[in-house]
Amino acid sequence: MPEAPERITRLLPLIYEGIVRRSLEEDLGRAGDITTDAIATPGALASGSIVARAPGRIAGLDVALSAFRQLDPAISFEIRLEDGSDAVAGQALALLEGQARPILSAERTALNFLGRLCGIATSTRDVVAVVAPYGTKVVCTRKTTPGLRAIEKYAVRAGGGSNHRFGLDDAVLIKDNHRVLAGSLSEAVRRVRGCVGHMVKIEAEVDTIAQLEEALGLGVDAVLLDNMSLEDLARGVRMARGRAITEASGGITPETAAAVAATGVDLLSIGWLTHSAPSLDVSLDLSL
Amino acid sequence: MPEAPERITRLLPLIYEGIVRRSLEEDLGRAGDITTDAIATPGALASGSIVARAPGRIAGLDVALSAFRQLDPAISFEIRLEDGSDAVAGQALALLEGQARPILSAERTALNFLGRLCGIATSTRDVVAVVAPYGTKVVCTRKTTPGLRAIEKYAVRAGGGSNHRFGLDDAVLIKDNHRVLAGSLSEAVRRVRGCVGHMVKIEAEVDTIAQLEEALGLGVDAVLLDNMSLEDLARGVRMARGRAITEASGGITPETAAAVAATGVDLLSIGWLTHSAPSLDVSLDLSL
Amino acid sequence: MPEAPERITRLLPLIYEGIVRRSLEEDLGRAGDITTDAIATPGALASGSIVARAPGRIAGLDVALSAFRQLDPAISFEIRLEDGSDAVAGQALALLEGQARPILSAERTALNFLGRLCGIATSTRDVVAVVAPYGTKVVCTRKTTPGLRAIEKYAVRAGGGSNHRFGLDDAVLIKDNHRVLAGSLSEAVRRVRGCVGHMVKIEAEVDTIAQLEEALGLGVDAVLLDNMSLEDLARGVRMARGRAITEASGGITPETAAAVAATGVDLLSIGWLTHSAPSLDVSLDLSL
Amino acid sequence: MPEAPERITRLLPLIYEGIVRRSLEEDLGRAGDITTDAIATPGALASGSIVARAPGRIAGLDVALSAFRQLDPAISFEIRLEDGSDAVAGQALALLEGQARPILSAERTALNFLGRLCGIATSTRDVVAVVAPYGTKVVCTRKTTPGLRAIEKYAVRAGGGSNHRFGLDDAVLIKDNHRVLAGSLSEAVRRVRGCVGHMVKIEAEVDTIAQLEEALGLGVDAVLLDNMSLEDLARGVRMARGRAITEASGGITPETAAAVAATGVDLLSIGWLTHSAPSLDVSLDLSL
Amino acid sequence: MPEAPERITRLLPLIYEGIVRRSLEEDLGRAGDITTDAIATPGALASGSIVARAPGRIAGLDVALSAFRQLDPAISFEIRLEDGSDAVAGQALALLEGQARPILSAERTALNFLGRLCGIATSTRDVVAVVAPYGTKVVCTRKTTPGLRAIEKYAVRAGGGSNHRFGLDDAVLIKDNHRVLAGSLSEAVRRVRGCVGHMVKIEAEVDTIAQLEEALGLGVDAVLLDNMSLEDLARGVRMARGRAITEASGGITPETAAAVAATGVDLLSIGWLTHSAPSLDVSLDLSL
Amino acid sequence: MPEAPERITRLLPLIYEGIVRRSLEEDLGRAGDITTDAIATPGALASGSIVARAPGRIAGLDVALSAFRQLDPAISFEIRLEDGSDAVAGQALALLEGQARPILSAERTALNFLGRLCGIATSTRDVVAVVAPYGTKVVCTRKTTPGLRAIEKYAVRAGGGSNHRFGLDDAVLIKDNHRVLAGSLSEAVRRVRGCVGHMVKIEAEVDTIAQLEEALGLGVDAVLLDNMSLEDLARGVRMARGRAITEASGGITPETAAAVAATGVDLLSIGWLTHSAPSLDVSLDLSL
Repeated sequence: MPEAPERITRLLPLIYEGIVRRSLEEDLGRAGDITTDAIATPGALASGSIVARAPGRIAGLDVALSAFRQLDPAISFEIRLEDGSDAVAGQALALLEGQARPILSAERTALNFLGRLCGIATSTRDVVAVVAPYGTKVVCTRKTTPGLRAIEKYAVRAGGGSNHRFGLDDAVLIKDNHRVLAGSLSEAVRRVRGCVGHMVKIEAEVDTIAQLEEALGLGVDAVLLDNMSLEDLARGVRMARGRAITEASGGITPETAAAVAATGVDLLSIGWLTHSAPSLDVSLDLSL
Repeated sequence: MPEAPERITRLLPLIYEGIVRRSLEEDLGRAGDITTDAIATPGALASGSIVARAPGRIAGLDVALSAFRQLDPAISFEIRLEDGSDAVAGQALALLEGQARPILSAERTALNFLGRLCGIATSTRDVVAVVAPYGTKVVCTRKTTPGLRAIEKYAVRAGGGSNHRFGLDDAVLIKDNHRVLAGSLSEAVRRVRGCVGHMVKIEAEVDTIAQLEEALGLGVDAVLLDNMSLEDLARGVRMARGRAITEASGGITPETAAAVAATGVDLLSIGWLTHSAPSLDVSLDLSL
Repeated sequence: MPEAPERITRLLPLIYEGIVRRSLEEDLGRAGDITTDAIATPGALASGSIVARAPGRIAGLDVALSAFRQLDPAISFEIRLEDGSDAVAGQALALLEGQARPILSAERTALNFLGRLCGIATSTRDVVAVVAPYGTKVVCTRKTTPGLRAIEKYAVRAGGGSNHRFGLDDAVLIKDNHRVLAGSLSEAVRRVRGCVGHMVKIEAEVDTIAQLEEALGLGVDAVLLDNMSLEDLARGVRMARGRAITEASGGITPETAAAVAATGVDLLSIGWLTHSAPSLDVSLDLSL
Repeated sequence: MPEAPERITRLLPLIYEGIVRRSLEEDLGRAGDITTDAIATPGALASGSIVARAPGRIAGLDVALSAFRQLDPAISFEIRLEDGSDAVAGQALALLEGQARPILSAERTALNFLGRLCGIATSTRDVVAVVAPYGTKVVCTRKTTPGLRAIEKYAVRAGGGSNHRFGLDDAVLIKDNHRVLAGSLSEAVRRVRGCVGHMVKIEAEVDTIAQLEEALGLGVDAVLLDNMSLEDLARGVRMARGRAITEASGGITPETAAAVAATGVDLLSIGWLTHSAPSLDVSLDLSL
Repeated sequence: MPEAPERITRLLPLIYEGIVRRSLEEDLGRAGDITTDAIATPGALASGSIVARAPGRIAGLDVALSAFRQLDPAISFEIRLEDGSDAVAGQALALLEGQARPILSAERTALNFLGRLCGIATSTRDVVAVVAPYGTKVVCTRKTTPGLRAIEKYAVRAGGGSNHRFGLDDAVLIKDNHRVLAGSLSEAVRRVRGCVGHMVKIEAEVDTIAQLEEALGLGVDAVLLDNMSLEDLARGVRMARGRAITEASGGITPETAAAVAATGVDLLSIGWLTHSAPSLDVSLDLSL
Repeated sequence: MPEAPERITRLLPLIYEGIVRRSLEEDLGRAGDITTDAIATPGALASGSIVARAPGRIAGLDVALSAFRQLDPAISFEIRLEDGSDAVAGQALALLEGQARPILSAERTALNFLGRLCGIATSTRDVVAVVAPYGTKVVCTRKTTPGLRAIEKYAVRAGGGSNHRFGLDDAVLIKDNHRVLAGSLSEAVRRVRGCVGHMVKIEAEVDTIAQLEEALGLGVDAVLLDNMSLEDLARGVRMARGRAITEASGGITPETAAAVAATGVDLLSIGWLTHSAPSLDVSLDLSL
């Protein structure tokens, strides 16, 4: 199993409090938790632990605990395994204690966040482990769940991966359609350089060695080698060495990742980390 | 392949416009699509089609098209395959035409919604096909993506599945923890009946035949048979016949679904339809 | 005076904090409480009590106190009479103490909520008392104040009443127009059963004994006997016994409620509890 | 019956669109109108009229129609009786035509607004008629429904009444508590004049003739004569003539309004117009 | 230098918390402060002071500190110079202490608010000092920064100025276009008096002595003498004495303010206080 | 006067519609434009032009026109001078025509946006003209108006300037405090490289030639030469040539800009463009 990444900086609550609140409202609806409200007596207390039922990389504990905290600030927590660590099956990730009613009412919302984020971190960790021997990095894409981009990109970091653009506004990626619109890649790059600031990097997507040659000649910061054969990829990587960061994309799976990494490419770009990684099975075990 | 469900009622835009807008804002950030803004000339037009790259059940076209519409109300659309239909690989789902710039800027947001919803519909369709011969229904759970519950439950319907509770407030589900809090299932049911209105159904989760016996004696509307062996399940279904709706849950997979359905249970409750179904590969093919 | 209901579960703050905040913003506008801001010195303290000026059933104290708390979390409270209890004229419901300025600035917003919710609870209590001897329940409708449905339905419970649907999405009610659209009640019920999940109850509105007969034959969960004569109502109730819950609606007033209840109907549905109940006179008596 | 007011300026949609949208979301919840969605076929059309079932003053048609428009901009409307006019029982206020589904789904939200606003306008109209012979105006207070102040104050105008402050920030009203905080009314007025701008009017609440004398000496713009006997009121009005606007408040009912107006006071301030006026019975009669 | 105004009442947090939060979100974006997050270790502490780098009138400390508080409620503060006081260059306005990370991440947002509000207060103070010998007041206009009106008007008060209307709804100002629409000023005033409540003041803009004469004859509360020569202004002020508040407007600068004030006009209305006042240079000096 | 920049891409409405709507709500308050509502008759029409009263660079016309459009979608517009062009005094920027009432009610909000954005664009244009002979670019900072960053950065582009970071999350800027926290610049850079993605540029602030040497040795993308003497700046620029982008900051004014540019530095970073540029005088001239 790969080591945990050096350090995962915890997200500022401002980044996730809004989406957690909206998710609580989505689950509680107009009338709230009618089952628990009918059954729990006002004084009833609960203590318990959030447990990983399957082994995996942990991500999103703060986000999950925020669900409990937003229903009742008096619930107390003890984190047992920091984000970015690996849990074995059955391991407790956090303990919590407080009124039974808000704990039960926030449970599903908290676990929905945690399972998804641990799932992404675990899938990322696994593919990172495969390509680590080659010194290759794994990056995610903009194919994230609508509304959850910031926390899903955080989960990728917790899995040992790295982040590509957070949106359309923080870096330039010139794709096929942009090249067509401009008439040529060189014209596209010229237009971009006339518009964006000096702190913005430029990457060009290329499908062929010829396109790569043009892109390197234009001095772009990075090249996205899309759907290339392993041979072309290896050749492209050699061409780009010292001239641009190289990134491979296009249907890379855990099975093919090692072969792609062996071409020497700097980065593997993998969309399914965020759009199709299965959730990790996590649960809340309570003593009432 | 199973037939498409009788009729999928389109969602009112009010249900999804807000989350689509927030997702556009999430992707466009503060500065917008800096690549396209630099490259596309004001008059540049585009036409193209949204295409399924893999075979699957379609769900969420209106949601996806709303992303384009919210950036530019002048983009025109033609839907070629209604939600609830099955696409073959390469099939066009919708055509669109308009200014190139908003089309390119909304593309990823639109596809992120569509891929996820088609993925859920497709996974649902596949398991529905497996259990259809037994007359069993497939239902989803509250293990949905935070913020997307309404549209994910819609995707389950498009896949031929049925919906369990939409939240904590529209039906009662008495789980283990509730039973413990109340002291007994009968006390839990008594408390619930003292609180909730006459239009609210009550379901009780039971783990054993003894618990099932108690639940049936209390006249609940439905029983959730959780993690039971196939033998117990079959026995429980016979006991409950004519007295309560029966629902099986607990780690049901496409592989085990047929065996569970063969017990005669009314419903299979499957969480992974919404928390772990892989996205369907969809793309936007443009002519510029 | 009827007894207080068994137990009123307090609302989660998440349910009402948003509407209370919007109401404070509505009253404070852009410039805030210009009278109090000009007059109150920074150190000025106040203590006082929220008082019922007229006798009534209490509901909404937490909602009202939230207005003070949102302006100044340091204000302290002591609740003297729980929601669901009956106050005599002049009785103190809660004591509060803190800075004079936020207390004065939140006063009207707090009282606007409290007066309305106590008014609903009081009207509900009074009609509940009238029909209690017959074992009949009183239920409210969707004719609630826009924006306040969750807390008004709570006030009905505090008054000893029960809640009908919270919205269009948590239960099915087939009305005249739906029957016309479907062609017949049986077709309407068939369509509904093909669409909604297993945890959703179905009620049919019927205007005549013939329609009731049809509805009962279809196995709906409840029937809404709308604007029937007392004779037809009594006859309908007998027909429905053991087959469906019966609910009477249509212009029921405190004066006519007993006669309607005497027909043996299970529930009286009364819209004016939420759309026309007069506020209870409540005030804040301060010592400065 | 009094004449309709000279002209009721229609509210800008910006004022009410937000609260109407929130109310639609409140009623539609997560799943939407499950009854209508199951039953209405896509092409089904409806036309119909919004009808007053009881006689009353009309207010809020634009607000109500906005509910339909927000669900489906293609619904067409024809207003038959402008806000500020009087309807007889059974009179059509507006005609509408469009898809059956959004019309049925918006019906209750639209009527909830309309019934409440017409109710306020009608109650206002009736008390205005009582005091009109005395040249007295009727004004509402800040005892409005949380979230609905702007539209309820509009309904008062439609009823022929006038508006007092819209919030705590648009005029100064020095009440008892403010006087106590400042030590004296003159000190309170001094502090206010040191703080507020030149476009802000100042009113002082007075309980006794002595207080009135002090207030008039301070040159306030208006005096609120609170809970005074008719004798004191008449005396106070004579004292204030030409020096300040006079406003009577405190438990004024339709029965006592004429006697209070006969004292010559300029304005009657009546809280129940907005907090306790019963809704007008309005309905939507459809042809499907 | 003029004395600080008698007392500046601190704004309720409800007035500014929302805009501060939106501004933090604007600066932190999706990914947060990536520089500080990478560099600051979890335990790193910081203490420091907010310092005025140039002399000026202080306004907005609470607003600025709210930025830190919203990122981390555990940061502690000590205010050293209250709003409404004058700082010399280099003077500490507030001390703060806490985790280094949230302090660094909130710094720019906090200073952006503080610099702007102190800039407005300082410019206001300076022009107030110029006209104070004439007993003239300085008022701001509605030419404020979009979204910041309430706090910019507060800064004007902290600078010793006074506030004109906060919006279009709290007082009447009849401008040229309104006069044209009505046909005459007298008709405009008549229409206004038929619509607005008794607590609303009426001001008329006049460009000529003849218009002023008409306005005074109509008994308006205030007259806005727009772009008049000093001679006409002086003549107008004499005409209006005892009949209406006089306000001069139109390109008044610090250089011309004394001459305008010398005409005896009651108020100078100066738009550039809020739309063009330069920021005060403020900084955060930290010890790490 | 410098030429207009090559092409200013218009902002997507999604970027500014929210802040324009909030500003309209800020100005209209609860009651709306009470002056215009009282005076304008329903059918009254208006046509007119938005005019620059002083010469300047135009920016923000779409933003300003959105204010009118949001009050009344039926108002028609004709833009006469595109953003990024220079207006002479008195020149019409746009014509508009429609109902008088919404035009008058949106006027101030529209002009508040336009005046501010044109002011920024004009100040930027003027300093760009000064440094253009040296091939130096002008960039803005994060010292923008809270809530308006995206549109103010757009105005800088319209003035011929370029944009630095849009927030804390789209590029790394290592300042003094970060260096202190890390212990050294090299450690700070190491930590950053371990955290951020490959599309993020890194800039280091340096105060001395020694620090610059260290930064260049670390291979950062850009160096911010802060408050250096002209001599040190010139020396630093020579050292950095071909190794990093150079940016000068610290109290640069229009007067000193040429001398700083003459050092050969690539960029001048100027905060006052957004925090202290005076508004351009713009007005709406109407025919009613």
